[in-house]
Amino acid sequence: MKFLATYGYKGRVYPINPKHAVIAGLKCYPSVASIDGPCDVAIVAVNGAATVNVVRECGKKGIRFAVVYSSGFRETGDAGRALEADLLAAAREGGVRIIGPNCQGYLNLSERLYATFGVLGLEPDLKVGPVSTVAQSGGFGFGIVTQCESAGVGFRNLVSSGNESDVTTPDLLEAYVEDEGTKLLVGFVEGVRDGRRLMRVANRSVRAGKPLLMWKAGNSEIGKRASLSHTAALTGSYDAYRAAFRQAGIIEMRDIDEISDAVRALLPGRLPRGNRVAALGSSAGSCILFADRYAELGLEMAELAPETEAALAKVIPSYGSPRNPVDVTADVFNDLGAFTEAVDIVLSDPAVDQLAVIYAGLSGEIALTCNRAVADAVKKHGKPVMLGWTARRHRAEAAYKLVDEEQIPYFTSPVRLANAAAVLARFAQYRQRATRRTSPFDERDVNFDATLPTKSGALSEAESKAVLARWGVPVTRDSLVPVGQDAPKLGAGFRFPLVVKVASSDIPHKTEAGGVILGVRNAEEIAKAAEEVVRRARAYAPKAQIEGALVCEMIDDAVEMLAGVVRDPVFGPMVTLGMGGIQAEVLRDLAYRVAPFDEETAREMIGELRGAALLRGFRKRPPADVDALAQFLARLSHIAWALRGRLVELDINPLMVRPRGKGVVAADALVVLRESDGSKVVSETALMEEEK
Amino acid sequence: MKFLATYGYKGRVYPINPKHAVIAGLKCYPSVASIDGPCDVAIVAVNGAATVNVVRECGKKGIRFAVVYSSGFRETGDAGRALEADLLAAAREGGVRIIGPNCQGYLNLSERLYATFGVLGLEPDLKVGPVSTVAQSGGFGFGIVTQCESAGVGFRNLVSSGNESDVTTPDLLEAYVEDEGTKLLVGFVEGVRDGRRLMRVANRSVRAGKPLLMWKAGNSEIGKRASLSHTAALTGSYDAYRAAFRQAGIIEMRDIDEISDAVRALLPGRLPRGNRVAALGSSAGSCILFADRYAELGLEMAELAPETEAALAKVIPSYGSPRNPVDVTADVFNDLGAFTEAVDIVLSDPAVDQLAVIYAGLSGEIALTCNRAVADAVKKHGKPVMLGWTARRHRAEAAYKLVDEEQIPYFTSPVRLANAAAVLARFAQYRQRATRRTSPFDERDVNFDATLPTKSGALSEAESKAVLARWGVPVTRDSLVPVGQDAPKLGAGFRFPLVVKVASSDIPHKTEAGGVILGVRNAEEIAKAAEEVVRRARAYAPKAQIEGALVCEMIDDAVEMLAGVVRDPVFGPMVTLGMGGIQAEVLRDLAYRVAPFDEETAREMIGELRGAALLRGFRKRPPADVDALAQFLARLSHIAWALRGRLVELDINPLMVRPRGKGVVAADALVVLRESDGSKVVSETALMEEEK
Repeated sequence: MKFLATYGYKGRVYPINPKHAVIAGLKCYPSVASIDGPCDVAIVAVNGAATVNVVRECGKKGIRFAVVYSSGFRETGDAGRALEADLLAAAREGGVRIIGPNCQGYLNLSERLYATFGVLGLEPDLKVGPVSTVAQSGGFGFGIVTQCESAGVGFRNLVSSGNESDVTTPDLLEAYVEDEGTKLLVGFVEGVRDGRRLMRVANRSVRAGKPLLMWKAGNSEIGKRASLSHTAALTGSYDAYRAAFRQAGIIEMRDIDEISDAVRALLPGRLPRGNRVAALGSSAGSCILFADRYAELGLEMAELAPETEAALAKVIPSYGSPRNPVDVTADVFNDLGAFTEAVDIVLSDPAVDQLAVIYAGLSGEIALTCNRAVADAVKKHGKPVMLGWTARRHRAEAAYKLVDEEQIPYFTSPVRLANAAAVLARFAQYRQRATRRTSPFDERDVNFDATLPTKSGALSEAESKAVLARWGVPVTRDSLVPVGQDAPKLGAGFRFPLVVKVASSDIPHKTEAGGVILGVRNAEEIAKAAEEVVRRARAYAPKAQIEGALVCEMIDDAVEMLAGVVRDPVFGPMVTLGMGGIQAEVLRDLAYRVAPFDEETAREMIGELRGAALLRGFRKRPPADVDALAQFLARLSHIAWALRGRLVELDINPLMVRPRGKGVVAADALVVLRESDGSKVVSETALMEEEK
Repeated sequence: MKFLATYGYKGRVYPINPKHAVIAGLKCYPSVASIDGPCDVAIVAVNGAATVNVVRECGKKGIRFAVVYSSGFRETGDAGRALEADLLAAAREGGVRIIGPNCQGYLNLSERLYATFGVLGLEPDLKVGPVSTVAQSGGFGFGIVTQCESAGVGFRNLVSSGNESDVTTPDLLEAYVEDEGTKLLVGFVEGVRDGRRLMRVANRSVRAGKPLLMWKAGNSEIGKRASLSHTAALTGSYDAYRAAFRQAGIIEMRDIDEISDAVRALLPGRLPRGNRVAALGSSAGSCILFADRYAELGLEMAELAPETEAALAKVIPSYGSPRNPVDVTADVFNDLGAFTEAVDIVLSDPAVDQLAVIYAGLSGEIALTCNRAVADAVKKHGKPVMLGWTARRHRAEAAYKLVDEEQIPYFTSPVRLANAAAVLARFAQYRQRATRRTSPFDERDVNFDATLPTKSGALSEAESKAVLARWGVPVTRDSLVPVGQDAPKLGAGFRFPLVVKVASSDIPHKTEAGGVILGVRNAEEIAKAAEEVVRRARAYAPKAQIEGALVCEMIDDAVEMLAGVVRDPVFGPMVTLGMGGIQAEVLRDLAYRVAPFDEETAREMIGELRGAALLRGFRKRPPADVDALAQFLARLSHIAWALRGRLVELDINPLMVRPRGKGVVAADALVVLRESDGSKVVSETALMEEEK
């Protein structure tokens, strides 16, 4: 109340409490019904059980929004869960939207509205700016705000969303995308309920040129357990969140300083055209650290043109270096013309998308002159330039003032500068990607539902492969030898050596069961091998139902991978891709994407694998058919989306990626279905359409 | 000069310049010879070419130390390199030790001695404390100091070592280990010349209880290139540095904030007994982030005893959590007795080695009371407690003062707090390890030199395996079928199926050449396979000299790994270990250690592999013989050290690690030797002895 009454909020405030006549100098009302004027928002700070009635009264009074601080809801167990349902029902009934419960309120700094009991209430002079935030955990979320503000960031809307019974993080982010005064969004979540909604909002935000930074907590096993026990937020897998963030253009944050650095890098709104950065500094040590870090982030230092290097060599001392990272040496500060010229030369090179200037502790008049040169160069070239600069503020007041006014960001270590440069590059890439219309994969005329058998549960290898074949996915040719029968005559496609595998949907890991014999060389060996795998499988799993043995062609020119479809509780069907083989499985070299997606996304996914080098051709092996792999993944993602009503799991392992031009082949597959619920399966690429 | 003359240094200062009579108010001398009193150190700031003479004069005058600021030496190319050699010769001749050239001088804050022209000269009021530093790059190194000082760190000796022509980083670190006033060492290097010297000094430092933090730059390709072009520091591989750091107990740093955080965590000198940390906080969000990060660092959150959880449940609200991370909720601040009790309960649990208390923005009187409770608990339990605390200083002056005085470190984010807790745990582990005497592997009586043939270059597989066998390393049994001859009768040890491989020291990658046939089932097939691999190898490498085909036993119960010996230019012989197979090779899942080392180190090395899970038994496979693997690696490391005069490279690929109790077997090996130089090969474990 004190904050609302004394921090300069211009709207009317109605304290409500039957026990008092005046609160914080304002007339106090005995009930919601008794207030004598229009009201937009109710701040509810009664005990948990009393909230239901209060919200009902708000509905009757026509108050459209309520912020419920009170706790005692789902975070406390089943009784609280029931109370939360009652609260929500009361809200819906009266047409009231709720923020919370179990939240620390919100602040609208441009209106000087402090509706919070949290730590930010103590800070009436918070810097106003274009950053809006939402945090499920008010305590920590507001802590982030305090610290970012100390680093010079200004804020606009700050919401603690608590249990998100009604209004959710994506709702609030969407409001920020629509709010003209918000230029940058920050979210701190333990989880969201509707992952796809978050992705759509993020996509809109990126297209609107508003970066969305998110920090997701509760990713370790123990962190997840703690998270579940406290807010009962639905936490999907961290892998799924990270994939979704990349896919939707959300920039993932992992510490507070990272947030303030990213905000300061992004707010000026100058974006590089590509990833290539040049560094120019007076301390070679700093330049090297910058280059180390930028490379570690998987990004590219610009390769300067020979003419650029020649021109630089003329203006910097011989013991400097005209190669990127450019070491101009501390000597250039004795001849500031040389510094100015060097900056201009580097920025003129078309291979340079952005420039990092590293001064170390430069102070006083020299710093001012250098900063002015940088500011002029930014205007001339229109490329982003950021500074690595550690001067103490009081030794370079005027120089700091200049770059603050010109919105040239500076960072206190070359490592943080490199991180910030990478954030700029990444957002630029997200923005280009989001505004480029990709043609969605059009499968509206295919009824994928018809490709599935009506049964549910795990299908056998043969059944699973038949499904893939109906989807148009190449599968290894194979022929079933039923138990106790002779091998049928093999078709023309089979060439020795062959593979003989046990056929049983009860034995998903055939190799472990001894159920795979490689290198079968002739018809006679087929019969022997077929008997043998069945015998071994029976010994391994006596209760398994065994159909017989599968005789398959052997593919020996491929890179073995694995691909599949999993269902994440938050993001729904996702496609996975990984390197195959037992070791790669143990190393968990896997990439994920939310289905459906296009080929470009599939390529990003492939590029994320540490083992991707194998696809480029290893030793004397030819490069693998990455085009076909990308097409396959995009197609699989659309099928996964279309069949989301029935497909529980799909596992293709190994997926053979053959040399360029020869495509991919599924050598083994496992499809798990659930019963059809009779509802119409959506066969168009609904999500992607929605996004357009 | 100004700094020396006016910052309160008590010693005498003799300016020398023939053109002036007085400098900075002090009598100026025309030459080194003309000064009229004893002198400890000469600061040399003449141009590069003139330094040789000045240092010679210092020698004559009996000045034992010279700090050479001047540049124009090896960093500029061959002429500079020659000049540097002259400088060093002049110094040696006159018995002068040199710091630099191409450095920014040094500071001894306890004596108020500012012998520098760098940025630190502008800061006469640098905080004095027990941290001493050495940085090759003065510009950046001193920048680190400025920023750490802003974070509250006090310093003692600060040296910019430049080209390290004479006095090196390890020399300076060694002096700091001996300096009583120094409690913590920080180094910033692009490279060192004698890696083993650095390791020995680090080992001494750890045993003296003085943590050594190091930041190594120039690790990316481009960073390394830039580093070579500017100081011409010798840069070994980053993998080697990281391994050596871990092995010697050096804590690796990767950003400035990391350094100031680590220093603040370590300086109070309270170390945990183990890795297990408990977190206790009022904001669940922060606790979760702490747990996420600590887990990500591969460390263990303490599992609280049931009695501990039960006791906690009595003092914290029902919507909190008594499990670690313990969520005491913000409510405990209404009943500070509960907070005090909760802290005491957690610290009483013997499973808790250290505690992280997370307050978020707690301020004012409450913060003071809580901090007092924490300080009392630290005294009572003797376990380290650190705070996650974001209150603005002016809102909690007294509370900050208390923890500053009590040396209880605090950090501004739960992520940084977790990093700091991990640093404490790591140093505690390093310290325990360094003070525990491990019995060195004693091979003094074995003349390993006699195990090697006199020839040099790459040995064939058979020759290489013979060498391994003489070392006592099990190798797969094999039998040579010379070109054009019949297969000899196989001994009793051979069981079908077998492997047939081409035998040629000119073909190191046999599989690529088609030179390996697996699963050979009978004597008749041996002859065919032997012919076939020779034929394929000839087609693959027509000029290769081919001895014939090797018939080898096939091992199918093992985890395939690879092991070897490489020579690092800085650290000398190192042992490598990795997961085998083409994919693991591409994923570069490798660990390194400087030879020689003990079994415990070998176990750490094994544990670093991402694929180590495979050794623990994957699916239904039995656990692998990790004991035998560790013994093998330690033994190999001693042999590598003993044979360092001749062994250029050793590559065992695959190294078969069989199930527990069955040991390891080298299935293929490549030994590369250089010519014996006739010198006595050191066969004792010299390095480890030196360290004792």
